[in-house]
Amino acid sequence: MDILDANPISFSAFPDDKAVFEPLNPEDVRAYLHKAVDFISDYYTNVESMPVLPNVKPGYLQDELSASPPTHSAPFDVTMKELRTSVVPGMTHWASPNFFAFFPSTNSAAAIAGNLIASAMNTVGFTWQASPAATEMEVLALDWLAQLLRLPTTFMNRTSTGRGTGGGVILGTTSEAMLVTLVAARDAALRRSGSVGVSHMTRLVVYAADQTHSTFFKACRLAGFDPANIRSIPTGSETNYGLDPTKLLKVLQADVDAGLMPTYVCATVGTSNAVDPVGAIADVAAMFNAWVHVDAAYAGSACICPEFRHHLDSVEHVDSISMSPHKWLLTCLDCTCLYVRDAHRLSDSLETNPEYLKNDATESGEVTDLKDMQVGVGRRFRGLKLWMVMRTYGTTKLQEHIRSDVAMAKMFEDLVHADNRFEVVVPRNFALVCFRIKPSGSMTEEDADEANRQLMEKLNKTGQAYLAHTMVGDKFVLRFAVGSSLQEERHVRSAWDLIKKTTSTIMD
Amino acid sequence: MDILDANPISFSAFPDDKAVFEPLNPEDVRAYLHKAVDFISDYYTNVESMPVLPNVKPGYLQDELSASPPTHSAPFDVTMKELRTSVVPGMTHWASPNFFAFFPSTNSAAAIAGNLIASAMNTVGFTWQASPAATEMEVLALDWLAQLLRLPTTFMNRTSTGRGTGGGVILGTTSEAMLVTLVAARDAALRRSGSVGVSHMTRLVVYAADQTHSTFFKACRLAGFDPANIRSIPTGSETNYGLDPTKLLKVLQADVDAGLMPTYVCATVGTSNAVDPVGAIADVAAMFNAWVHVDAAYAGSACICPEFRHHLDSVEHVDSISMSPHKWLLTCLDCTCLYVRDAHRLSDSLETNPEYLKNDATESGEVTDLKDMQVGVGRRFRGLKLWMVMRTYGTTKLQEHIRSDVAMAKMFEDLVHADNRFEVVVPRNFALVCFRIKPSGSMTEEDADEANRQLMEKLNKTGQAYLAHTMVGDKFVLRFAVGSSLQEERHVRSAWDLIKKTTSTIMD
Repeated sequence: MDILDANPISFSAFPDDKAVFEPLNPEDVRAYLHKAVDFISDYYTNVESMPVLPNVKPGYLQDELSASPPTHSAPFDVTMKELRTSVVPGMTHWASPNFFAFFPSTNSAAAIAGNLIASAMNTVGFTWQASPAATEMEVLALDWLAQLLRLPTTFMNRTSTGRGTGGGVILGTTSEAMLVTLVAARDAALRRSGSVGVSHMTRLVVYAADQTHSTFFKACRLAGFDPANIRSIPTGSETNYGLDPTKLLKVLQADVDAGLMPTYVCATVGTSNAVDPVGAIADVAAMFNAWVHVDAAYAGSACICPEFRHHLDSVEHVDSISMSPHKWLLTCLDCTCLYVRDAHRLSDSLETNPEYLKNDATESGEVTDLKDMQVGVGRRFRGLKLWMVMRTYGTTKLQEHIRSDVAMAKMFEDLVHADNRFEVVVPRNFALVCFRIKPSGSMTEEDADEANRQLMEKLNKTGQAYLAHTMVGDKFVLRFAVGSSLQEERHVRSAWDLIKKTTSTIMD
Repeated sequence: MDILDANPISFSAFPDDKAVFEPLNPEDVRAYLHKAVDFISDYYTNVESMPVLPNVKPGYLQDELSASPPTHSAPFDVTMKELRTSVVPGMTHWASPNFFAFFPSTNSAAAIAGNLIASAMNTVGFTWQASPAATEMEVLALDWLAQLLRLPTTFMNRTSTGRGTGGGVILGTTSEAMLVTLVAARDAALRRSGSVGVSHMTRLVVYAADQTHSTFFKACRLAGFDPANIRSIPTGSETNYGLDPTKLLKVLQADVDAGLMPTYVCATVGTSNAVDPVGAIADVAAMFNAWVHVDAAYAGSACICPEFRHHLDSVEHVDSISMSPHKWLLTCLDCTCLYVRDAHRLSDSLETNPEYLKNDATESGEVTDLKDMQVGVGRRFRGLKLWMVMRTYGTTKLQEHIRSDVAMAKMFEDLVHADNRFEVVVPRNFALVCFRIKPSGSMTEEDADEANRQLMEKLNKTGQAYLAHTMVGDKFVLRFAVGSSLQEERHVRSAWDLIKKTTSTIMD
């Protein structure tokens, strides 16, 4: 036993916790990641048979796992076991092919790989210099996507003739895109008004249709707009719930007549299928020098197909546009692309120039420092996964992906149309079908709302499908969002069969 | 050849782009992720020998890759090859053990695996119901971390006696944590002042020491505070650049005397080593009913060790605290934990309640909907990686990690002290050493600043180390941040040797 005595440390004479701790030990990195890949593989194979909505109670996870952190380390297998036995059963499975709620959070092998590599490189690209390739990759991915969307070159960072005056940035959510453009528009309007500091803040007014995502109204409050000056303009079935530019003009004019300053109009392309007319809204806003932002979070992805691009007609007249590849362009969360026509209008409000970030590249004026186009300063290596998606799949496959989802949604819409118990409430534009049981016989509108609510609850309880609802006008409407990345035609057909069967149990 | 003719589709009779496109095809998922793991493994092995700062020109990546997106798909190997040959050489390698700039973006095998799994599940937990386990995991991870930090139970979501009134949320950056708390404090102050809407906005005032991260001043502007009412309070060497509570009291009293309303004070624990006195600041702020936020982005992680916890003494008297495990707690980007003592004060300002998110769980009041504690509505599965880090490594190893970095920094500090050409400018508290060549002989302060600037530039050009600088008082100071997760003692020693050698070439 001489050897053991001579050098006890190398023979685990000390308990595990005394060994040098290497958080990126090469063997651990490989082993943990391989276990994670195995988990993902199993998960994708089995998720179809798991209840889409779980049946757990608030606080369940703390009851299953410990309420306090462990003192000592554990093999990674223990962590993975708890993930499988305690976490997975409490998940709502957005990756399930039976998930039709909210919007599809589409995904792809290339995006996940890109995100994985970004996590490992773990670079912080606040300035160009802090990681040139991270900034350049983000700018390149945004410029590629701008070309897929056929955005005017005024929105691009680099064009064939050199550096442009426009540009983009990848943010986490549409809300952030709205917030930073609202702040830029706010500051510009305050300057125009001759405000001392924010003294004229109560004069500024912002506008959107009542179908606009609630996050817009939240972003306005964050940016300090007066709650009384945040206008939600009513829409109706006569415009398919799109914003009526004539109505907008009247509201803006009335505000100006009252001494207020129209500052920002948000146009939405594709909320519950409503599409605001971008060009007409831009024309109205231009009369008042108001900023126009287009929120194309979901439907923007469809505009990479020529047959859908008309929804962005006249986009060259707006100030900014955002869309989220994490919704419908196969890029895992989070990834919201914001484009502005004049990047300086953003950075005028968002620039910080602390001593510790000063560097020659910034001072040369040759580079984009992405910290000046976002809420914070720190930032992930955001461009990589989006580039990997476009580089690997190419335009053709991405268009095929959109068209396949739209075809499945059209098939579902046709099935709804063919059953006279139902109605499609808003004409389908993309891969979202807004439908409901329609009143018939002695059924009132209220009865129909109740029947639809019951239908949704019963469906969701089966675990075999998950649908969400919304109100369109004053109707309770079911939203059937096609496109989860493991979804095939058979899943859509099964969901329809389940809807028909469940409806029969309600309407009997 | 009968078989071929009978069923041509399965024999690739159609060109590649005609095959059904499955973005999550099981074989692709496995193959792409395994290639990514191989890349990461190679990268970690080789990053030590790569220049930490690259030598590339603005626009280089567009020149190397294509300026336009490809039409057709390509094998994933092509994407990976371009990553290796064009992207990697343009990166600033934050993962390099020779990286000493800004702050270490620490990382671990468990965190990367957690992020990978979260990317694949791709769940959106805006409400509890939208993914119960995602919300519960985030709440659990935050409550665990609160215990590691020995935060008072008032900051916890769940305590041994049931659901608490406090709570936390994981955000992307400290800026977001500041922004949402600033908005909550702003709205509360407006209500207290009897403001109609935001009419009293110009009366509200916010405060921080001049050493506070610039992102605080940006967050104040985003939230609509008047630029004239954002106070940066000077600090000096007499308080080791910490905020002097007596000075703070004078400034607040003067503002009140002038008819203004102190609304928010930001105390920093650990910017360039300065630590503001949390308790004394809270006492002053309480006299004026101002919100106190503690920004412990970097140094908060150290407070999991008893010997550093005193920096958070009196934290029970503040309204909110944020710290970023993506800085020093081995959790890859991004992960900023915000705790508030009264969760309702946040959600009063940030709640949205659109029809499509209404659900029974929310209405029961039993659950936390994390969308109401953040800027946007959508959100990733943020808690998983942080939980995996704590679950796998346990408190002991996490403390060991902090202590090991601090020991290396102390070693470096001792080396600096032992060389009389240098001075340590601010006493080291954690793993960051702020030092410089000190004036000697006929050297003026200006000469010394210039020598330090030259030293930094020469060092960074070698590619063998990367350091950043800051100004402390009016001195140009080098920041030597220890802790990159692949770093060992030998890297710190090599960097010091390089610093000594380079200094000799300057001072000869």
